[in-house]
Amino acid sequence: MQEVRKKCLLIANHPYFTNFIIGLILLNAVIIGLETYSGVYSSYKNWFIAADQILLWIFTVEILIRMFASRSLTSFFKEPWNLFDFIIVASGHLFIGGHYVTVLRILRVLRVLRAISIIPSLRKMVNALLMTIPSMGTIMLLLGIFFYIYGVIGTTLFKSIAPEYFGTLHSSLLTLFQVVTLESWASGVMRPILAEDPTSWWFFVTFILIGTFVIFNLFVGVVVTNVEEANQAENPSPTDVKLREVQNELKEIKQMIKESQTNK
Amino acid sequence: MQEVRKKCLLIANHPYFTNFIIGLILLNAVIIGLETYSGVYSSYKNWFIAADQILLWIFTVEILIRMFASRSLTSFFKEPWNLFDFIIVASGHLFIGGHYVTVLRILRVLRVLRAISIIPSLRKMVNALLMTIPSMGTIMLLLGIFFYIYGVIGTTLFKSIAPEYFGTLHSSLLTLFQVVTLESWASGVMRPILAEDPTSWWFFVTFILIGTFVIFNLFVGVVVTNVEEANQAENPSPTDVKLREVQNELKEIKQMIKESQTNK
Amino acid sequence: MQEVRKKCLLIANHPYFTNFIIGLILLNAVIIGLETYSGVYSSYKNWFIAADQILLWIFTVEILIRMFASRSLTSFFKEPWNLFDFIIVASGHLFIGGHYVTVLRILRVLRVLRAISIIPSLRKMVNALLMTIPSMGTIMLLLGIFFYIYGVIGTTLFKSIAPEYFGTLHSSLLTLFQVVTLESWASGVMRPILAEDPTSWWFFVTFILIGTFVIFNLFVGVVVTNVEEANQAENPSPTDVKLREVQNELKEIKQMIKESQTNK
Amino acid sequence: MQEVRKKCLLIANHPYFTNFIIGLILLNAVIIGLETYSGVYSSYKNWFIAADQILLWIFTVEILIRMFASRSLTSFFKEPWNLFDFIIVASGHLFIGGHYVTVLRILRVLRVLRAISIIPSLRKMVNALLMTIPSMGTIMLLLGIFFYIYGVIGTTLFKSIAPEYFGTLHSSLLTLFQVVTLESWASGVMRPILAEDPTSWWFFVTFILIGTFVIFNLFVGVVVTNVEEANQAENPSPTDVKLREVQNELKEIKQMIKESQTNK
Repeated sequence: MQEVRKKCLLIANHPYFTNFIIGLILLNAVIIGLETYSGVYSSYKNWFIAADQILLWIFTVEILIRMFASRSLTSFFKEPWNLFDFIIVASGHLFIGGHYVTVLRILRVLRVLRAISIIPSLRKMVNALLMTIPSMGTIMLLLGIFFYIYGVIGTTLFKSIAPEYFGTLHSSLLTLFQVVTLESWASGVMRPILAEDPTSWWFFVTFILIGTFVIFNLFVGVVVTNVEEANQAENPSPTDVKLREVQNELKEIKQMIKESQTNK
Repeated sequence: MQEVRKKCLLIANHPYFTNFIIGLILLNAVIIGLETYSGVYSSYKNWFIAADQILLWIFTVEILIRMFASRSLTSFFKEPWNLFDFIIVASGHLFIGGHYVTVLRILRVLRVLRAISIIPSLRKMVNALLMTIPSMGTIMLLLGIFFYIYGVIGTTLFKSIAPEYFGTLHSSLLTLFQVVTLESWASGVMRPILAEDPTSWWFFVTFILIGTFVIFNLFVGVVVTNVEEANQAENPSPTDVKLREVQNELKEIKQMIKESQTNK
Repeated sequence: MQEVRKKCLLIANHPYFTNFIIGLILLNAVIIGLETYSGVYSSYKNWFIAADQILLWIFTVEILIRMFASRSLTSFFKEPWNLFDFIIVASGHLFIGGHYVTVLRILRVLRVLRAISIIPSLRKMVNALLMTIPSMGTIMLLLGIFFYIYGVIGTTLFKSIAPEYFGTLHSSLLTLFQVVTLESWASGVMRPILAEDPTSWWFFVTFILIGTFVIFNLFVGVVVTNVEEANQAENPSPTDVKLREVQNELKEIKQMIKESQTNK
Repeated sequence: MQEVRKKCLLIANHPYFTNFIIGLILLNAVIIGLETYSGVYSSYKNWFIAADQILLWIFTVEILIRMFASRSLTSFFKEPWNLFDFIIVASGHLFIGGHYVTVLRILRVLRVLRAISIIPSLRKMVNALLMTIPSMGTIMLLLGIFFYIYGVIGTTLFKSIAPEYFGTLHSSLLTLFQVVTLESWASGVMRPILAEDPTSWWFFVTFILIGTFVIFNLFVGVVVTNVEEANQAENPSPTDVKLREVQNELKEIKQMIKESQTNK
């Protein structure tokens, strides 16, 4: 058993193995892309099904090798990316049937996401992006309250005037998302409503002013903090380099004073 | 009396109390959301009215408890968030009648805003956002002058060509707000006018160039300053940590020199 | 003569005088705004003409007082804002006639800009904004070359397909400005052209990618530099405060060493 | 031969020579611009062809002079901007024929790009922009995966509902680029699809949320890093200036201690 584990570890850590899997993920992506062209798909349907089955089994073997290579199942699944890989591959087996349904196809395209878990630099970047989510918690809650209040007010006021935009609370929330991206907020949404209710401009103008300000704050806050942390981690500032020199010189001075005291 | 105050203070500071109120505010938000679906509302109209009345009275009791818990009425109302809570709840009693009018409904949705005054992290964030308003004063004034001048020029020039956009000064200002958000400024606003007055492009191009530059300056200035202050407050920079070490070492050196002098 | 100059200086520097002029500029702005409403204007035409004449003469007297107050005419006109004020007011006299033409009206609305030259905080901010223009020189030149090349290519390729957007070089440049603001670039401009020339997407996609990147660079570069300079000027960083303390301590140490040497 | 090289070097480095070439590039740009006006072009066709030929030959001589001035051909072509100049001018000779085809015209407009290689400040700025491309590698790969997955899903889901937007994988990718620039994403793309498939909103909302966040991260990260580096390179921070003073004072103190030791 220990023998098998050692061999699996050797294989799993070998650069050829990783590159081979990256290559297969790329091939898988190309196949999935080709399938979307219905002409190509209907001509070579059997080839596509066969290729998909082969790739799925190779990925299964890959996961198994990496599983055996790790100390225990719990240590394997502790790493979220391993769990992610496992779910992606396992779902391929679960949903497989004689026919390709839409849900299955979409699931299969997610296999391309495995490129993130395999290429270290991508993994690091996505981890960094995911780590910003908790710090966005409070501002997201604030945005949620803000959207909800404007959604209820919008539905109450414009339900009968513009049912396609503010007919129900959920369609209002979608419309507000459109408005906050500034897409056709005036030409498409506000001006037709303004023609019926000439005082409705305050609703849109205040929503955009507050919304863009809060979102901009959120984005800039999170991103600038990210960037500065990344910069500081990569290369220390020239100020810090000089400060270290100052500290070294202070140590020398202390040493000199000590010596002058002992000399006496 | 002192007894009552003590008890109120105990209740008001108890985490269960706060969580209970947060839960009720959430419930209130859900109820208000459900009311916007006219089918649901007409079927359970009496239930909605009853739930609203009960919640309003619980909130009233909550405010009264927090009022009694504070040293005096003036100290209670000194805190702007308390005044905000009081107005929100009091207005619920003032406007209550046998029927639900639109104004009342909108007032009731503002009760959801009480979540901000109750959840400390939200309160802190909104305070921070509100504190940036004074520093925006000068740039807001500049933007105001800029919008006003372009508004008057636009109305004078395009009043007869595009009455739906530049018919009156206030509709011009709304159109300029639309233009500065870059929404349909060319396809919707400028091109039809350009067909009549081929030299009018300078009006829109200069307005967008100046407007986006000044607004971008405003946003970035306020937000970057905010973010940097927040970062500095949370964790001191590594430079500052090292500087403190330098200062400590300097103190040691001074001590050593003093000792060497007294030793003599 | 010296007497007159002293008196003028006293008047010109008096806060009441400045506030009075600010008030009149505000009044002038309101009057110009009201004039855009043709109903109001035709009813009170004579009043408007009279008010405008009176304000113009008061402003003339104000400029004259400030002129007399300054040491010499050259020192008065050295300050660009004084020259600006002078031109704005003088042009009012030049163009005045029996009837109000469009050009004159637009010139008169520029008098509102005098608020900038009179309110010190606005003046400081506009000066800061204007000072960023030279540093934008190179990037503006780069943008110019970039627009010109895409303008010529666009005109050559799409002249016959979309004459309303790319008929002539100058209309192409205007269309490219619209595209770089991302306004209807796809729905309005690209998709109709794409229907005729299916390979034209590269023109728009590369233009947007390069254009937004360069402009974003320009904006962020100028604005971030501005903001950081402003922040550093207003309050020195905590690091600098600590460094000064370190410098003071070093001086003390030097003093102590000197004393210990002389004591010997 | 050495004589010729020396003379070429003298000419190539002379400011008049550079200014003369900049002037000709400008003239070339104006001529190319004028040619797009078909009325002007057909009247003076022969003049345009002649001017173009003359300019092309002057540029050829210029490149040859600069070639002779450099130590060797390999050292000349090592500098990428020289290679760029050479290709631009050489292609003019290759494609020249009796008639002006579209491809040739576009190639000729690229000669305006030579202004970048000749004006030093532009060259420096473009070099800086190009140097950011490698650091964008990982995030570009991430964006690519993200676009590809959404492209495949979009094509699978909406192929039959909206063939003009999601008919094939490549048109889906173009549509997604349009959506991420927020151009008509709701009014043009989503709402017609939503009318057929009411659950499709998640596709667009998640795509916009993730896409704008990642792109914003990319832009801000690259640009802020750029700007900070540029600022630090141009003028050292006041902190660093003070630190140098501290270091000098430390050296003095060390000197003083040494002297006090030798004095004993």
